[in-house]
Parts: sequence; C-alpha cells; structure tokens
Amino acid sequence: MELTDLGVLCNGIKEGKFGLAMAKFKGAIAGVFTSNKIKAAPVIVCKENISSGYAKGLIVNSGNANAFTGEKGIEDAKEMCRIASKLLNCNEREVALASTGVIGRRLDMDWIKRKAPEVFAGLGKSKECAERFSNAIRTTDKFIKKAYSEKAKISAVAKGAGMIAPNLATMLCFIFTTAKFESGELYEMLKKAVKPLNRLTVDGDTSTNDTVLLVSLGKEKVERYVFEEELERVCYSIAKQIAKDGEGATKIFEVFVKGAKNEKDAEIVAKTIARSLLVKTAIFGSDPNWGRIVSAIGYSGAEVDDKITIVFENDEKSVKLVEKGFITGKEEEAKEVMKKDFRIIVDLHKGVYEDFAIGCDLSYEYVKINSEYTT
Amino acid sequence: MELTDLGVLCNGIKEGKFGLAMAKFKGAIAGVFTSNKIKAAPVIVCKENISSGYAKGLIVNSGNANAFTGEKGIEDAKEMCRIASKLLNCNEREVALASTGVIGRRLDMDWIKRKAPEVFAGLGKSKECAERFSNAIRTTDKFIKKAYSEKAKISAVAKGAGMIAPNLATMLCFIFTTAKFESGELYEMLKKAVKPLNRLTVDGDTSTNDTVLLVSLGKEKVERYVFEEELERVCYSIAKQIAKDGEGATKIFEVFVKGAKNEKDAEIVAKTIARSLLVKTAIFGSDPNWGRIVSAIGYSGAEVDDKITIVFENDEKSVKLVEKGFITGKEEEAKEVMKKDFRIIVDLHKGVYEDFAIGCDLSYEYVKINSEYTT
Repeated sequence: MELTDLGVLCNGIKEGKFGLAMAKFKGAIAGVFTSNKIKAAPVIVCKENISSGYAKGLIVNSGNANAFTGEKGIEDAKEMCRIASKLLNCNEREVALASTGVIGRRLDMDWIKRKAPEVFAGLGKSKECAERFSNAIRTTDKFIKKAYSEKAKISAVAKGAGMIAPNLATMLCFIFTTAKFESGELYEMLKKAVKPLNRLTVDGDTSTNDTVLLVSLGKEKVERYVFEEELERVCYSIAKQIAKDGEGATKIFEVFVKGAKNEKDAEIVAKTIARSLLVKTAIFGSDPNWGRIVSAIGYSGAEVDDKITIVFENDEKSVKLVEKGFITGKEEEAKEVMKKDFRIIVDLHKGVYEDFAIGCDLSYEYVKINSEYTT
Repeated sequence: MELTDLGVLCNGIKEGKFGLAMAKFKGAIAGVFTSNKIKAAPVIVCKENISSGYAKGLIVNSGNANAFTGEKGIEDAKEMCRIASKLLNCNEREVALASTGVIGRRLDMDWIKRKAPEVFAGLGKSKECAERFSNAIRTTDKFIKKAYSEKAKISAVAKGAGMIAPNLATMLCFIFTTAKFESGELYEMLKKAVKPLNRLTVDGDTSTNDTVLLVSLGKEKVERYVFEEELERVCYSIAKQIAKDGEGATKIFEVFVKGAKNEKDAEIVAKTIARSLLVKTAIFGSDPNWGRIVSAIGYSGAEVDDKITIVFENDEKSVKLVEKGFITGKEEEAKEVMKKDFRIIVDLHKGVYEDFAIGCDLSYEYVKINSEYTT
C-alpha cells in the first residue's frame, strides 16, 4: 500500500546527486525531529509550520541538507515552502519540508525554483508517482524503506542508511494514514512509536536533519489502541530496514535486555552493546565473542555483576552462551545462529525492566564508504 | 631509561600467545584500575594487595585475562601471587599482579607454575632483561610503549593497542620512580596523571583488566610539582603511543576543546568527536569533513550553538575551517594538514572550560583484526 493508495498526490525527480519531491494532501500533522542541538534549517522551519497541527503539502530535497547554513539557510527553507505553496495553492505555513544531504552548503535555489513546477505538474496517484517520490528523497540508500498496515490504514516511506551518517544518510520518514486523529493525538502516538527509530543507534551519530512526520487524512475511524500498535509495528519495520541498509552492513542484529534494575539501565545496556565496535566487528566475522558483550555490559554504566545470561537466537535456533555467569561452551552452535540476522538476548537478573536496540555489523565496506566519500 | 636502570630486577618469557613477566623491587605503590563494572580477577586481587601501600614484586601474564572466571578466577589470581611470593621470598600480599588476553577462560596454572621459576631465575638489570619483561606483557601490540623522565627519575612501560579491545588489548602500564613518595601521594598524583589514558576513548570500549601501577623505590628527593608535571608528560606520551598502535590505525589525532560552558561540556565534546566513527573514517581518508565534527558536537549533549570555530593543525600549519559558524572554504589546505598526525581544535565560544581527547583513525585493518580474531 503506497502513499498514493491513501489518496496522497505524489511526485519527484532526481538529477544526479540531487532530488526534489512533493506531495499534496489535506490533513492533521505531527512530527518528531532530531535531538541534535545543531538543527538544520528545514527542521526549524518545518517544526514551526506544523505547529498549527495542519498541513496541505510537503516538499523534500535530497543532496543538500541545508544544515549549518545560518540565517540564509532559514531564508532558503522558507523560500522552498513558498515555492511549493504557490504551486499547491495554499499558505506557505501549510507546507511541511525536509532536506537531506551534505552539510554546510547553501541550497541551489535556482534549481529548486526551476524543478518545482515540473514536479508539481507530474503529481498523481499512480504507483509510478509514488516510486518517483521515494526515489527523489534517496541519497546513499540502496533501497527505499516502506511499511504499511491495512488494518490501521497506514502507509510509510522512509530514507536512511543504518550508519546514520550526518552528511549523507539522514533519516527521513513520512507516515500517512486515512484514520482520523487530531494533531495532538498523532503527536502522542508518534512520540511513542518512534522508539525503534531512536534505538537505531547504529554508530551513535545523530543527524542534524532527522525528521519523522505523521499525517492523518481524517477519512475513517480506527480504534486508537489498534492504531498505536500498528504504528509501532510500522516504525519497527522501517527501523529494521534502515539498519539492513546500513552502509556496508551485511546483517542486522537486535539486542533485547531484560532483568534490568530500572528503565535507564535496560536502555543503556541495549544501546551500549548495539554500538560497540568490537561487538559489531565480531558479528561481521560471525564470531560468538560474548566476552565483548560482557565487557560492553560492564562499561555501560548500568548496575550489573557477572551473573548474567547471554543468548543468541534466530527464528530457527536459540543458543545459550552464558547462563548466570556460567560459560556453556556452545560457541560453535552460536556461530551458526550468527550467519544471518539474529537477536542477542541479555538477562541481567537484577530486576524486571526491559529494553531493546537495533544494530548492524561493521564491515570493510563501511570504512570504504565513509573514508572515500569526499566533502 | 629502562625500569632496570632504576634498580628494578626484570624478566619475562613468551611462548606463542602466552607470556609471563616478573619484577622484583621494594617500594611504595599505588594503582588505578578499570572503571568497567565487570572487573577481572587480577584487578580485584591486585587492588586488595596494594591497599597496604607497599609491594615487593609484580607478576603479569598475557594471553589470558582471567576475567569473567568467577570465584575460581580469584583463586587462580591469588595462586599466581603465591607462586611469585615464594620465589621472591616475600608475603603473597606483597605481590602486585595483572593479566591481559582472552576473556572467560581459566588460566593455565600448570604452565604458570612451570614457567615462573624460569622467569625468576633470569631476573636481572640488563637491557635484555627489561626487553624480555616488555615483550612478555604484549598481546596484539605492534610495539612496546615506553616513556621516561630523567628529571623526575621516572620510567614507564606499557602495553595496549589504540582500539582498546577488551579481549586482547587491555591497557597495562607500569611506572617506576626512584623519587621518594608515600603511597597516598603516589595515588593522588597518579589519579590526576592518568587523565590522558582515560581520554584515549578510542572506540569507547573499556577493558575489564586495565591497570596502571606507580611504584616509588624511595631513593631520592624530587619536588612534588616537578614530579607531577613529569608524570603527566610520561602518561600523555604513553597514551599517544597506545593510540598510535591502534589496531589498524594509520594516524592519531588529538581533540582540544575550549570555550565550553563548564567542565563536563568540554569533556563530552572532546570525547564525542574522538569517538565518532564518521570522524574517524573521514580522518583515515584525509577528508576534512568538518560537517561530521559539527554533527558530533551537536549530539554530544553539551550546550552548543552553530557559532563554533574549528581549526585543524599540525606542527607546521594551522587551518581554520569554520570561524564562529562562518565556513572559510579552506578544505584543500586542511587536507594537507590531515596527511599525518594532527590536532582538531574546537572553540565553542560559550565559556572558559577546556578539555582534550586522543583518538586514532578507523581503517579497513581495524575491521579485519576485529572480525577475524577468533575467540
């Protein structure tokens, strides 16, 4: 189910490294944005525009993040909204926007001005229109991330590569639904549902441009608890797809931590394991080096002792490597589990709190992509 | 100036992956140890033994960390001290110890029992004795780290690779001096001087076994302020050498942060930059991608805005890439500076606090070493 199947008019174009995408709709809107203290101009302007809780259009450019561009960058972001609003025949404050790409360069406003009418002219509801939209927001993405829920009438499209690289791999996620909710409700539900996207601390680097928007086209009634559950499922799916498309990633892993003394401990243990370079490289090499996991748990800052349990599992097999501090010696079996996407389950045996994180392995390819990319 | 030049009797042997080293001396002792909550048995036992403030010997093994080995591991660590004490003719509580190597395996006590007399028999004050000691404590180290101060009569030897890998690259540092100080003074001075070793957050992974010992042989008078300064210089030198020997590192960089609003902000900004995978890979590729530094500053958690200054410099050249948020466009010049070890200087323009961190780049070789190493 594409955005266009929900009634959203879409289109986009891509010319070399640069892309421009637009969408036309009418709906209640809410958004969550990067926690990076240095926020890109489009993040600042979009936040302001959607504060009314209502929007009629969306404009997105790729190839240039319009970040670290000062007052002039803010002007450019506003100008983008103005250009879109004239075409969409609405107020410029009714336009949401996002940018992704290189940091510290002014937008090529001439190009945007020239291309916007072209994008607008092609707006439509066909599958091809949806595909052109998705393609235009891509940067280093090897594939476009999509997820939907028939039950809750949700369709989401996202871009972002696992190693959330601030210069090229900002995470942008646009979620539309025909289910009817007010902006306030959308915000509450979105805030909760984006957790998996926040837990995608693949290399710990947070982009200046990360943007997740949720738009309700307000056509039908869906129970809130159903919508919430489905929205979380959609975000979890997008998060896993982003990890999967990690720069140079060969596989993804999920870390589930249980038995933590408190909420914070569960969170930091999960994130610390998912972020450890030594864990990530061991996973690339399918090496069940649980010592690195133990070490990460130890330096996470959480209250732990050595009576922990560590299990590796995939859908077919579950292997206990350490049981309450006792080493089982099942490394060979664990190696098998690690050959594709798998889960690391850690029980701290300290309490009842749980949390999770999503990670991807660290390969030669990651170093290649990130050392050879030239500013 | 080697340990042996200060009058310490040294020796060591290495057989394949395993090494055993001993030293004989009489002196006041102080130590600082890993902050990892899961501490190796030798760390626990050494801490206890040196709490008397006095020691007569040191025994170190490499190849096995004796970490995550429970009660039995503690027994083994104590047995190591007992073996050494019998040979050195002292109390077992007068022996300091350290281990480095793989996690989660019992020590081969038979091998240690067999080899200790051999090591003891070869104890001496020759340069070769010092070299055998240094070599025996090595694991993945490509070279042994040494630093000394003639002025303050300090000699230090250390092992550790930049990407402090808990399974193989624990940092062990043994510092001896003939300057006369009490254990309490040694501890105060050491605690302060080890800062560069703590700031070597090369991949953020902290070993279960990190140990730094400072021994005063108490022969001569050195002014405390002189000693403190020289001790800090020695530790800084060791830290840089460890970074230089980073697994797969091709160059090191120092991050100096100034103008921070408070102490904590200065620290987290320096550490966050030094730890960023994107910064590290950019440095490997000599790519002056200051956008990644800006992004790291932004997500560090410190109070910052976009009016920051970023300078790259080495001993020959200084290039300002960003000045109070204004982009200078000097990327080509900065590329030159990055071709060898260099410094990143960041001014946050928010206050008067400063701090630093030491890092090394992230290369293909790092991934190779850490994915192909088999537990």
